[in-house]
Amino acid sequence: MVDETDDNISAITEQGVAAGLLCRMTEICLETAWHGARDPGQLVMDLNAIGAVREVRSYQPFGHIFGSRVIIIGGGAQVAQVALGAVNEADRHNIRGERISVDTIPLVGERTLALAVDAVARLPRATILVLAGSIMGGEISKAVDRVREAGIPVIALKMAGTVPEHADLVVTDPIQAGVFAVMHVSSKAVFDINRVKGREF
Amino acid sequence: MVDETDDNISAITEQGVAAGLLCRMTEICLETAWHGARDPGQLVMDLNAIGAVREVRSYQPFGHIFGSRVIIIGGGAQVAQVALGAVNEADRHNIRGERISVDTIPLVGERTLALAVDAVARLPRATILVLAGSIMGGEISKAVDRVREAGIPVIALKMAGTVPEHADLVVTDPIQAGVFAVMHVSSKAVFDINRVKGREF
Repeated sequence: MVDETDDNISAITEQGVAAGLLCRMTEICLETAWHGARDPGQLVMDLNAIGAVREVRSYQPFGHIFGSRVIIIGGGAQVAQVALGAVNEADRHNIRGERISVDTIPLVGERTLALAVDAVARLPRATILVLAGSIMGGEISKAVDRVREAGIPVIALKMAGTVPEHADLVVTDPIQAGVFAVMHVSSKAVFDINRVKGREF
Repeated sequence: MVDETDDNISAITEQGVAAGLLCRMTEICLETAWHGARDPGQLVMDLNAIGAVREVRSYQPFGHIFGSRVIIIGGGAQVAQVALGAVNEADRHNIRGERISVDTIPLVGERTLALAVDAVARLPRATILVLAGSIMGGEISKAVDRVREAGIPVIALKMAGTVPEHADLVVTDPIQAGVFAVMHVSSKAVFDINRVKGREF
Protein backbone atom coordinates (compact mmCIF):
# COMPACT_ATOMS: atom_id res chain seq x y z
CA MET A 1 0.00 0.00 0.00
CA VAL A 2 1.36 3.37 -0.97
CA ASP A 3 0.86 6.15 1.51
CA GLU A 4 1.08 9.90 1.10
CA THR A 5 3.20 10.68 4.11
CA ASP A 6 5.66 7.84 4.21
CA ASP A 7 6.10 4.45 2.72
CA ASN A 8 7.86 1.17 3.29
CA ILE A 9 9.33 -0.12 0.06
CA SER A 10 11.04 -3.45 -0.37
CA ALA A 11 13.23 -3.85 -3.44
CA ILE A 12 14.64 -7.22 -4.39
CA THR A 13 17.71 -6.74 -6.56
CA GLU A 14 19.81 -9.20 -8.47
CA GLN A 15 23.05 -7.30 -8.22
CA GLY A 16 22.45 -5.22 -5.13
CA VAL A 17 23.11 -1.56 -4.52
CA ALA A 18 26.00 0.83 -4.84
CA ALA A 19 27.46 -0.18 -8.19
CA GLY A 20 27.15 -3.91 -7.78
CA LEU A 21 29.01 -4.19 -4.46
CA LEU A 22 26.80 -7.08 -3.42
CA CYS A 23 26.49 -9.73 -6.07
CA ARG A 24 23.93 -12.13 -4.62
CA MET A 25 20.15 -11.69 -4.63
CA THR A 26 19.54 -9.12 -1.93
CA GLU A 27 16.43 -7.69 -0.29
CA ILE A 28 16.57 -4.01 0.55
CA CYS A 29 13.93 -2.33 2.71
CA LEU A 30 13.61 1.42 2.31
CA GLU A 31 11.41 3.40 4.66
CA THR A 32 11.05 6.96 3.45
CA ALA A 33 9.21 10.07 4.62
CA TRP A 34 7.39 12.17 2.03
CA HIS A 35 6.76 15.79 2.76
CA GLY A 36 4.33 16.74 0.08
CA ALA A 37 6.07 17.14 -3.27
CA ARG A 38 7.13 13.55 -4.08
CA ASP A 39 4.99 10.90 -5.76
CA PRO A 40 5.47 7.44 -4.20
CA GLY A 41 4.13 5.75 -7.35
CA GLN A 42 6.86 7.43 -9.38
CA LEU A 43 9.53 6.16 -6.94
CA VAL A 44 8.26 2.60 -7.37
CA MET A 45 8.36 2.97 -11.17
CA ASP A 46 11.86 4.49 -11.07
CA LEU A 47 13.11 1.66 -8.84
CA ASN A 48 11.55 -0.91 -11.19
CA ALA A 49 13.34 0.75 -14.11
CA ILE A 50 16.76 -0.04 -12.56
CA GLY A 51 18.23 -3.04 -14.38
CA ALA A 52 19.39 -4.89 -11.27
CA VAL A 53 16.01 -4.61 -9.51
CA ARG A 54 13.97 -7.81 -9.77
CA GLU A 55 10.83 -6.78 -7.87
CA VAL A 56 9.50 -3.78 -5.90
CA ARG A 57 6.77 -4.12 -3.28
CA SER A 58 5.04 -1.38 -1.29
CA TYR A 59 3.83 -1.90 2.25
CA GLN A 60 2.13 0.21 4.85
CA PRO A 61 4.98 1.90 6.72
CA PHE A 62 6.15 0.58 10.10
CA GLY A 63 5.33 3.99 11.55
CA HIS A 64 1.63 3.38 10.89
CA ILE A 65 1.70 -0.14 12.33
CA PHE A 66 4.18 -0.04 15.21
CA GLY A 67 4.28 3.75 15.71
CA SER A 68 6.64 5.60 18.02
CA ARG A 69 8.98 3.52 20.12
CA VAL A 70 9.61 3.82 23.85
CA ILE A 71 13.03 2.19 24.40
CA ILE A 72 13.79 0.63 27.79
CA ILE A 73 17.35 -0.41 28.65
CA GLY A 74 18.61 -1.79 31.94
CA GLY A 75 18.88 -4.91 34.02
CA GLY A 76 17.47 -6.76 36.98
CA ALA A 77 13.99 -6.78 38.43
CA GLN A 78 13.34 -3.13 37.57
CA VAL A 79 13.61 -3.36 33.79
CA ALA A 80 10.55 -5.66 33.55
CA GLN A 81 8.58 -3.38 35.90
CA VAL A 82 9.28 -0.37 33.66
CA ALA A 83 8.12 -2.45 30.67
CA LEU A 84 4.99 -3.47 32.60
CA GLY A 85 4.07 0.16 33.29
CA ALA A 86 4.83 1.28 29.74
CA VAL A 87 2.95 -1.56 28.01
CA ASN A 88 -0.14 -1.09 30.20
CA GLU A 89 -0.12 2.64 29.51
CA ALA A 90 0.50 2.16 25.75
CA ASP A 91 -2.47 -0.23 25.65
CA ARG A 92 -4.70 2.54 26.99
CA HIS A 93 -3.43 4.96 24.32
CA ASN A 94 -3.43 2.56 21.37
CA ILE A 95 -7.03 1.51 22.02
CA ARG A 96 -7.89 5.15 21.25
CA GLY A 97 -6.09 4.97 17.90
CA GLU A 98 -2.52 5.92 18.79
CA ARG A 99 0.46 3.70 17.95
CA ILE A 100 3.08 3.39 20.70
CA SER A 101 5.48 0.43 20.95
CA VAL A 102 7.53 -0.53 23.99
CA ASP A 103 10.89 -2.06 23.08
CA THR A 104 13.05 -3.45 25.86
CA ILE A 105 16.59 -4.80 25.97
CA PRO A 106 17.75 -6.09 29.36
CA LEU A 107 21.47 -5.39 29.65
CA VAL A 108 24.18 -4.96 32.29
CA GLY A 109 27.75 -3.61 32.23
CA GLU A 110 29.02 -0.06 31.70
CA ARG A 111 30.39 -0.50 28.17
CA THR A 112 27.51 -2.69 27.00
CA LEU A 113 24.96 -0.18 28.28
CA ALA A 114 26.83 2.83 26.83
CA LEU A 115 26.91 1.18 23.38
CA ALA A 116 23.20 0.43 23.55
CA VAL A 117 22.32 3.96 24.69
CA ASP A 118 24.32 5.44 21.80
CA ALA A 119 22.62 3.06 19.35
CA VAL A 120 19.17 4.37 20.37
CA ALA A 121 19.88 7.56 18.40
CA ARG A 122 20.10 5.39 15.26
CA LEU A 123 16.98 3.28 15.93
CA PRO A 124 14.09 4.15 13.60
CA ARG A 125 11.14 5.79 15.38
CA ALA A 126 12.84 5.79 18.82
CA THR A 127 11.14 8.64 20.70
CA ILE A 128 12.17 8.35 24.34
CA LEU A 129 14.60 6.24 26.39
CA VAL A 130 14.13 4.89 29.93
CA LEU A 131 17.16 3.67 31.86
CA ALA A 132 16.16 1.05 34.43
CA GLY A 133 18.69 -0.10 36.99
CA SER A 134 20.21 0.53 40.39
CA ILE A 135 23.62 1.90 39.41
CA MET A 136 24.72 3.55 36.16
CA GLY A 137 27.42 6.12 35.49
CA GLY A 138 30.74 6.75 33.68
CA GLU A 139 30.50 6.00 29.96
CA ILE A 140 26.73 5.54 30.26
CA SER A 141 26.29 9.14 31.46
CA LYS A 142 28.30 10.40 28.47
CA ALA A 143 26.11 8.32 26.13
CA VAL A 144 23.01 9.81 27.82
CA ASP A 145 24.30 13.29 26.96
CA ARG A 146 24.83 12.26 23.32
CA VAL A 147 21.41 10.62 22.90
CA ARG A 148 19.74 13.71 24.41
CA GLU A 149 21.70 15.93 22.01
CA ALA A 150 20.33 13.75 19.20
CA GLY A 151 16.84 14.79 20.32
CA ILE A 152 15.79 11.77 22.39
CA PRO A 153 14.77 12.60 25.99
CA VAL A 154 15.94 10.27 28.76
CA ILE A 155 14.11 9.17 31.91
CA ALA A 156 16.28 7.50 34.57
CA LEU A 157 15.14 5.58 37.61
CA LYS A 158 16.37 7.09 40.87
CA MET A 159 19.61 5.14 41.27
CA ALA A 160 23.26 5.25 42.35
CA GLY A 161 25.81 6.63 39.89
CA THR A 162 25.79 9.81 37.83
CA VAL A 163 23.14 8.87 35.22
CA PRO A 164 20.26 10.59 37.09
CA GLU A 165 22.20 13.89 36.95
CA HIS A 166 22.33 13.60 33.15
CA ALA A 167 18.70 12.57 32.55
CA ASP A 168 15.73 14.83 31.75
CA LEU A 169 13.65 13.28 34.51
CA VAL A 170 14.30 11.00 37.50
CA VAL A 171 11.56 8.64 38.69
CA THR A 172 11.62 6.40 41.75
CA ASP A 173 8.84 3.94 40.87
CA PRO A 174 9.72 1.82 37.79
CA ILE A 175 6.06 1.41 36.78
CA GLN A 176 5.57 5.18 36.87
CA ALA A 177 8.77 5.65 34.82
CA GLY A 178 7.25 3.49 32.07
CA VAL A 179 3.93 5.33 32.29
CA PHE A 180 5.62 8.76 32.08
CA ALA A 181 7.59 7.65 29.00
CA VAL A 182 4.41 6.65 27.16
CA MET A 183 2.59 9.81 28.31
CA HIS A 184 5.41 11.91 26.85
CA VAL A 185 5.19 10.08 23.49
CA SER A 186 1.40 10.28 23.33
CA SER A 187 -0.19 12.99 21.26
CA LYS A 188 -3.26 12.88 23.52
CA ALA A 189 -1.77 13.04 27.01
CA VAL A 190 -1.31 16.32 28.85
CA PHE A 191 2.22 15.38 29.95
CA ASP A 192 5.31 17.01 28.42
CA ILE A 193 8.72 15.99 29.76
CA ASN A 194 10.06 19.48 28.99
CA ARG A 195 7.70 20.96 31.58
CA VAL A 196 9.08 18.74 34.38
CA LYS A 197 12.72 18.72 33.22
CA GLY A 198 15.23 18.18 36.02
CA ARG A 199 12.59 17.13 38.52
CA GLU A 200 12.47 13.96 40.62
CA PHE A 201 9.36 11.92 41.32
CA MET B 1 33.42 -0.14 14.21
CA VAL B 2 33.73 -2.53 11.34
CA ASP B 3 32.89 -6.11 12.09
CA GLU B 4 33.73 -9.27 10.21
CA THR B 5 30.31 -10.86 10.24
CA ASP B 6 27.98 -7.96 9.72
CA ASP B 7 28.05 -4.21 9.85
CA ASN B 8 25.80 -1.23 10.25
CA ILE B 9 26.75 1.47 7.80
CA SER B 10 25.26 4.94 7.65
CA ALA B 11 25.76 6.88 4.44
CA ILE B 12 24.83 10.53 4.22
CA THR B 13 24.23 11.48 0.60
CA GLU B 14 23.61 14.80 -1.03
CA GLN B 15 21.50 13.48 -3.85
CA GLY B 16 20.18 10.28 -2.34
CA VAL B 17 19.94 6.80 -3.80
CA ALA B 18 18.65 5.19 -6.94
CA ALA B 19 19.66 7.67 -9.60
CA GLY B 20 18.89 10.84 -7.69
CA LEU B 21 15.28 9.99 -6.83
CA LEU B 22 15.59 11.90 -3.57
CA CYS B 23 17.13 15.29 -3.99
CA ARG B 24 17.54 16.53 -0.41
CA MET B 25 20.30 15.55 2.00
CA THR B 26 19.33 12.06 3.08
CA GLU B 27 20.65 9.63 5.68
CA ILE B 28 20.60 5.98 4.64
CA CYS B 29 21.27 3.17 7.11
CA LEU B 30 22.43 -0.11 5.60
CA GLU B 31 22.71 -3.21 7.77
CA THR B 32 24.42 -6.00 5.89
CA ALA B 33 25.47 -9.55 6.65
CA TRP B 34 28.92 -10.70 5.53
CA HIS B 35 29.49 -14.36 4.94
CA GLY B 36 33.24 -14.52 4.60
CA ALA B 37 34.33 -13.26 1.21
CA ARG B 38 33.52 -9.53 1.40
CA ASP B 39 35.72 -6.84 2.90
CA PRO B 40 33.71 -4.25 4.90
CA GLY B 41 36.53 -1.69 4.57
CA GLN B 42 36.28 -1.97 0.79
CA LEU B 43 32.50 -1.37 0.93
CA VAL B 44 33.05 1.81 2.94
CA MET B 45 35.66 2.99 0.41
CA ASP B 46 33.40 2.16 -2.53
CA LEU B 47 30.48 4.04 -0.93
CA ASN B 48 32.74 7.04 -0.28
CA ALA B 49 33.76 6.99 -3.95
CA ILE B 50 30.15 7.64 -5.04
CA GLY B 51 29.83 11.31 -5.98
CA ALA B 52 26.56 11.93 -4.16
CA VAL B 53 27.81 10.44 -0.88
CA ARG B 54 28.87 13.09 1.61
CA GLU B 55 29.96 10.88 4.54
CA VAL B 56 30.07 7.18 5.48
CA ARG B 57 30.11 6.00 9.10
CA SER B 58 30.43 2.45 10.41
CA TYR B 59 28.73 1.31 13.58
CA GLN B 60 28.48 -1.92 15.49
CA PRO B 61 25.46 -3.70 13.99
CA PHE B 62 22.10 -3.64 15.78
CA GLY B 63 22.26 -7.43 15.87
CA HIS B 64 25.23 -7.26 18.25
CA ILE B 65 23.62 -4.62 20.47
CA PHE B 66 19.90 -5.43 20.51
CA GLY B 67 20.11 -9.03 19.25
CA SER B 68 17.16 -11.23 18.34
CA ARG B 69 13.72 -9.77 18.88
CA VAL B 70 10.77 -11.42 20.62
CA ILE B 71 7.69 -9.59 19.28
CA ILE B 72 4.58 -9.40 21.46
CA ILE B 73 1.28 -8.21 19.98
CA GLY B 74 -2.10 -8.06 21.69
CA GLY B 75 -4.23 -6.02 24.03
CA GLY B 76 -5.55 -5.73 27.54
CA ALA B 77 -4.04 -6.87 30.81
CA GLN B 78 -2.39 -9.94 29.28
CA VAL B 79 -0.04 -8.20 26.87
CA ALA B 80 1.91 -6.54 29.70
CA GLN B 81 2.09 -9.85 31.58
CA VAL B 82 3.63 -11.57 28.53
CA ALA B 83 6.15 -8.70 28.30
CA LEU B 84 6.90 -9.06 32.03
CA GLY B 85 7.68 -12.77 31.64
CA ALA B 86 9.74 -12.25 28.50
CA VAL B 87 11.79 -9.31 29.84
CA ASN B 88 12.58 -11.12 33.11
CA GLU B 89 13.66 -14.22 31.19
CA ALA B 90 15.68 -12.19 28.64
CA ASP B 91 17.47 -10.47 31.54
CA ARG B 92 18.62 -13.89 32.79
CA HIS B 93 19.94 -14.81 29.35
CA ASN B 94 21.55 -11.47 28.47
CA ILE B 95 23.49 -11.39 31.73
CA ARG B 96 25.24 -14.52 30.41
CA GLY B 97 26.21 -12.73 27.19
CA GLU B 98 23.21 -13.35 24.91
CA ARG B 99 21.30 -10.51 23.25
CA ILE B 100 17.52 -10.87 23.29
CA SER B 101 15.13 -7.90 22.98
CA VAL B 102 11.44 -7.90 23.84
CA ASP B 103 9.42 -5.58 21.60
CA THR B 104 5.74 -5.07 22.39
CA ILE B 105 2.92 -3.31 20.59
CA PRO B 106 -0.44 -3.29 22.40
CA LEU B 107 -3.17 -3.42 19.75
CA VAL B 108 -6.83 -4.40 19.37
CA GLY B 109 -9.11 -4.99 16.37
CA GLU B 110 -9.05 -7.77 13.78
CA ARG B 111 -7.70 -5.77 10.85
CA THR B 112 -5.21 -3.80 12.94
CA LEU B 113 -3.85 -7.01 14.48
CA ALA B 114 -3.69 -8.84 11.12
CA LEU B 115 -1.68 -5.97 9.60
CA ALA B 116 0.73 -5.97 12.54
CA VAL B 117 1.17 -9.77 12.43
CA ASP B 118 1.96 -9.61 8.70
CA ALA B 119 4.44 -6.79 9.30
CA VAL B 120 6.42 -8.95 11.76
CA ALA B 121 7.79 -10.94 8.79
CA ARG B 122 9.42 -7.70 7.56
CA LEU B 123 10.84 -6.59 10.93
CA PRO B 124 14.62 -6.92 11.12
CA ARG B 125 15.78 -9.61 13.58
CA ALA B 126 12.23 -10.68 14.55
CA THR B 127 12.64 -14.28 15.72
CA ILE B 128 9.37 -15.28 17.40
CA LEU B 129 5.88 -13.78 17.83
CA VAL B 130 3.60 -14.03 20.86
CA LEU B 131 -0.10 -13.17 20.48
CA ALA B 132 -1.57 -12.00 23.77
CA GLY B 133 -5.31 -11.56 24.08
CA SER B 134 -8.61 -13.21 24.90
CA ILE B 135 -10.16 -13.50 21.43
CA MET B 136 -8.44 -13.52 18.04
CA GLY B 137 -9.48 -15.13 14.76
CA GLY B 138 -10.50 -14.41 11.14
CA GLU B 139 -7.91 -12.31 9.31
CA ILE B 140 -5.50 -12.63 12.24
CA SER B 141 -5.42 -16.44 11.86
CA LYS B 142 -4.61 -16.06 8.14
CA ALA B 143 -1.79 -13.63 9.01
CA VAL B 144 -0.51 -16.17 11.58
CA ASP B 145 -0.26 -18.76 8.79
CA ARG B 146 1.67 -16.30 6.61
CA VAL B 147 4.13 -15.23 9.30
CA ARG B 148 4.81 -18.90 10.16
CA GLU B 149 5.41 -19.61 6.46
CA ALA B 150 7.94 -16.76 6.53
CA GLY B 151 9.83 -18.74 9.19
CA ILE B 152 8.68 -17.00 12.37
CA PRO B 153 7.10 -19.33 14.96
CA VAL B 154 3.99 -18.13 16.79
CA ILE B 155 2.96 -18.67 20.41
CA ALA B 156 -0.68 -17.87 21.24
CA LEU B 157 -2.26 -17.53 24.64
CA LYS B 158 -5.10 -19.98 25.21
CA MET B 159 -8.02 -17.83 24.04
CA ALA B 160 -11.33 -17.74 22.18
CA GLY B 161 -11.27 -17.60 18.38
CA THR B 162 -9.29 -19.65 15.86
CA VAL B 163 -5.79 -18.22 16.42
CA PRO B 164 -4.72 -20.98 18.87
CA GLU B 165 -5.46 -23.59 16.15
CA HIS B 166 -3.01 -21.79 13.84
CA ALA B 167 -0.18 -21.25 16.34
CA ASP B 168 2.85 -23.46 16.97
CA LEU B 169 2.19 -23.49 20.70
CA VAL B 170 -0.68 -22.53 23.01
CA VAL B 171 0.08 -21.31 26.53
CA THR B 172 -2.44 -20.48 29.27
CA ASP B 173 -0.26 -18.38 31.58
CA PRO B 174 0.86 -15.11 29.92
CA ILE B 175 4.08 -14.94 31.96
CA GLN B 176 5.01 -18.47 30.86
CA ALA B 177 4.19 -17.55 27.22
CA GLY B 178 6.80 -14.76 27.42
CA VAL B 179 9.31 -17.07 29.09
CA PHE B 180 8.82 -19.80 26.46
CA ALA B 181 9.34 -17.25 23.65
CA VAL B 182 12.70 -16.16 25.09
CA MET B 183 13.72 -19.76 25.79
CA HIS B 184 13.08 -20.61 22.13
CA VAL B 185 15.21 -17.67 20.93
CA SER B 186 18.05 -18.41 23.33
CA SER B 187 21.03 -20.32 22.06
CA LYS B 188 21.67 -21.61 25.60
CA ALA B 189 18.26 -22.90 26.68
CA VAL B 190 17.23 -26.52 26.20
CA PHE B 191 13.80 -25.50 24.86
CA ASP B 192 12.91 -25.87 21.15
CA ILE B 193 9.40 -24.91 20.05
CA ASN B 194 9.53 -27.52 17.29
CA ARG B 195 9.69 -30.27 19.91
CA VAL B 196 6.43 -29.15 21.57
CA LYS B 197 4.63 -28.05 18.37
CA GLY B 198 0.84 -28.26 18.60
CA ARG B 199 0.84 -28.73 22.37
CA GLU B 200 -1.02 -26.73 24.98
CA PHE B 201 0.39 -25.68 28.35
